[in-house]
Amino acid sequence: MRYSRLFGKTTKTAPADETAKNAQLLLKAGFIYKEMAGVYAYLPLGLRVTEKIKQIIREEMNAVGGQEIIMTTLQRKELWEKTDRWSDEAVDIWFKAQLKNGSEVGLAWSHEEPITDMVKNYVGSYRDLPFCVYQFQNKLRNETRAKSGIMRTREFVMKDLYSYARNNEEHQVIYDAMTQAYLRIFDRVGLGEQTYFTFASGGAFTQFSHEFQTVTPAGEDTIYLYRAKRLAVNKEVLNDEVLAQLDLKREELEEVAASEVGNIFNFGTTKSEQLGLMFTDEDGKTKPVVLGSYGIGIGRLMGVIVEHYADERGIVWPKSVAPALVHIVSLKAKDEAMAERIEQIASSLHDELENLGIETIWDERDASAGEKFADADLIGIPLRLVVSEKTLKEDSVEWKLRSSTESRFVKLDDVLEEIEVYVSE
Amino acid sequence: MRYSRLFGKTTKTAPADETAKNAQLLLKAGFIYKEMAGVYAYLPLGLRVTEKIKQIIREEMNAVGGQEIIMTTLQRKELWEKTDRWSDEAVDIWFKAQLKNGSEVGLAWSHEEPITDMVKNYVGSYRDLPFCVYQFQNKLRNETRAKSGIMRTREFVMKDLYSYARNNEEHQVIYDAMTQAYLRIFDRVGLGEQTYFTFASGGAFTQFSHEFQTVTPAGEDTIYLYRAKRLAVNKEVLNDEVLAQLDLKREELEEVAASEVGNIFNFGTTKSEQLGLMFTDEDGKTKPVVLGSYGIGIGRLMGVIVEHYADERGIVWPKSVAPALVHIVSLKAKDEAMAERIEQIASSLHDELENLGIETIWDERDASAGEKFADADLIGIPLRLVVSEKTLKEDSVEWKLRSSTESRFVKLDDVLEEIEVYVSE
Repeated sequence: MRYSRLFGKTTKTAPADETAKNAQLLLKAGFIYKEMAGVYAYLPLGLRVTEKIKQIIREEMNAVGGQEIIMTTLQRKELWEKTDRWSDEAVDIWFKAQLKNGSEVGLAWSHEEPITDMVKNYVGSYRDLPFCVYQFQNKLRNETRAKSGIMRTREFVMKDLYSYARNNEEHQVIYDAMTQAYLRIFDRVGLGEQTYFTFASGGAFTQFSHEFQTVTPAGEDTIYLYRAKRLAVNKEVLNDEVLAQLDLKREELEEVAASEVGNIFNFGTTKSEQLGLMFTDEDGKTKPVVLGSYGIGIGRLMGVIVEHYADERGIVWPKSVAPALVHIVSLKAKDEAMAERIEQIASSLHDELENLGIETIWDERDASAGEKFADADLIGIPLRLVVSEKTLKEDSVEWKLRSSTESRFVKLDDVLEEIEVYVSE
Repeated sequence: MRYSRLFGKTTKTAPADETAKNAQLLLKAGFIYKEMAGVYAYLPLGLRVTEKIKQIIREEMNAVGGQEIIMTTLQRKELWEKTDRWSDEAVDIWFKAQLKNGSEVGLAWSHEEPITDMVKNYVGSYRDLPFCVYQFQNKLRNETRAKSGIMRTREFVMKDLYSYARNNEEHQVIYDAMTQAYLRIFDRVGLGEQTYFTFASGGAFTQFSHEFQTVTPAGEDTIYLYRAKRLAVNKEVLNDEVLAQLDLKREELEEVAASEVGNIFNFGTTKSEQLGLMFTDEDGKTKPVVLGSYGIGIGRLMGVIVEHYADERGIVWPKSVAPALVHIVSLKAKDEAMAERIEQIASSLHDELENLGIETIWDERDASAGEKFADADLIGIPLRLVVSEKTLKEDSVEWKLRSSTESRFVKLDDVLEEIEVYVSE
């Protein structure tokens, strides 16, 4: 992609009301656009990042038997009344609208109720269980205050998976498999080291739910790390009883700010009983299905990645989710023949990389080296290659990783091969 | 995919209120689920079809320079007030909701206004033009009556592309390129023959817009075909003046029912003027940008494909959008060794095809041949392979295309190679 043709340019300033680092950087770098407070559109570079994150999640969900579906934004009032979650007192983030006939519809802030009700049509016997369905679905949440940039918004895409099992043992097997899948996801997007399996409030159904909390100063939560066991406890459930139960000592815990990047939850049979999702077991008895739910907010995760890796010059993308892998910067030259040679080398490098399926941005603008380098740093593509009079005098390009301050020259004859090695690492 | 594990089984009956053939078949075949009137969820098989349709559209939009983004469902009232389209009198399909502070937000039924307003942030000079951005975005439309199954719904995904050009000549070049891209899309999804470039009402901005109308008895529109020129005229604009202008003779036209599968539209500079999207041209003058919009409803297109190809036994998918290419049916056998051999052959064929990246459903249920054949016909996968005692006695599988009534035996040693040829055809 030629940078001059890319929709969504860098800008010097972010909107004045935008205080979160992730949104400031993503707005300035041309990844997102702020439609209103807590509502962001994704421009080409931003969309590419979300699609890479989604694909990693999709692969891991499929690997543990998840089947992808897509539910609807419009939801039936009656379903949420059955579980006592329709009123604004029970759920204070509803957006609601009216059909032409005057009846109310809900706008999806979550999907347990509609999915579980739907599942009733496909589950009769124990032979139909267990299974897992998931979706990448837009959620609308009427937050009083939207802050933290793209980490807490009024509209966002969530991966939500729902597991349906015959009994608690079967549920636990799925729950454990999902835990492992989640850890692989956070590892693949570059947050493995910083992300902790965290005991959190279980609500009405179980003692605990489990969060995946990434340690970051931008986090809205306070958790207590037990680094040695790679566990954490959310402040909301920390007490002596819980510590004893988890065999943790208070003095060995470390208080940190963290952001919840994933949440897994055991609903038990409560929701199935409320909505009437029953099955006939092998013993001929009618039983309620055991439900689990497993969420990851895509924008939230992207925001946390930005917060974690960014430096004072801009975003630093891990290779696995970067919108492109290579950022070619061609510089101006006074000598016309040299200028042409620079253009030609950069252009053919760009084309060869794209032909190899290696996503590449080529900054071919008629702009200063300083401006181009500043933009490259802001955008945060992992590998920057500079083509200039200086590098061509040595038949080379300058090779610099965004995550490093070092640069070195690589011969033109070797550069494609080195890039292929770098990409496959 | 083993059919017994697939979420979304076939059912004998569709909801009583569902009269459209497309929705009846898709509901019975387990592709979609009806959440409420005019609102459908997509189950694994249905989602696969929509993703294939989207990928074809994506490739064609990218090929003519489209850049993919994603806007938001929540929209600002003020933008639609500027173009006099906020009131329910002006636009009678709005869903609206309230933020916590009491102010109103719109729920996206279209995106010209927000996209055009956003573009103001990235366009200053003629150098920033032309460009095209598109999205696959959920639209919510408060239809009084939802009918025609998935062809007219209250919630659906639309590909909408917006082109921004410096002047009418530049706009026309893009408009013509999009026309060609649209024809390629309808060709690739299997509707090329039946789809006509159609003159339709242009609204306030131009004399005509252009629709792509697919001839089908299920269509809601009436158009007049001029087969020889592969043109049509929508009934809404047919009069003597228009006929003269297009050099068509009334007696050579053929009245047919058709469904609009695509629509392209020239907004001229009206919307840019209303929203203030101006640029400085090469001559130093400030001018409004010329806007075009180009839509394809994904569910609509899927519904029309179903309507067009279905027969009395069920759906018939074209290869390009089929949720899988091969449907293996293994039959029961009384002899235990033979039953095992059938299972083993079918299983290894299934695994080999999946390893080759050829999507395959294997119906391994303990069900009768009649039930399995009926389900295979209903689901409509292009190639059915039967493994049974009868076929294995000849070291073969039975090969039958869904679109044909003929079947033949293919030797086990040859079947993989024949499938690869079939798939690549």
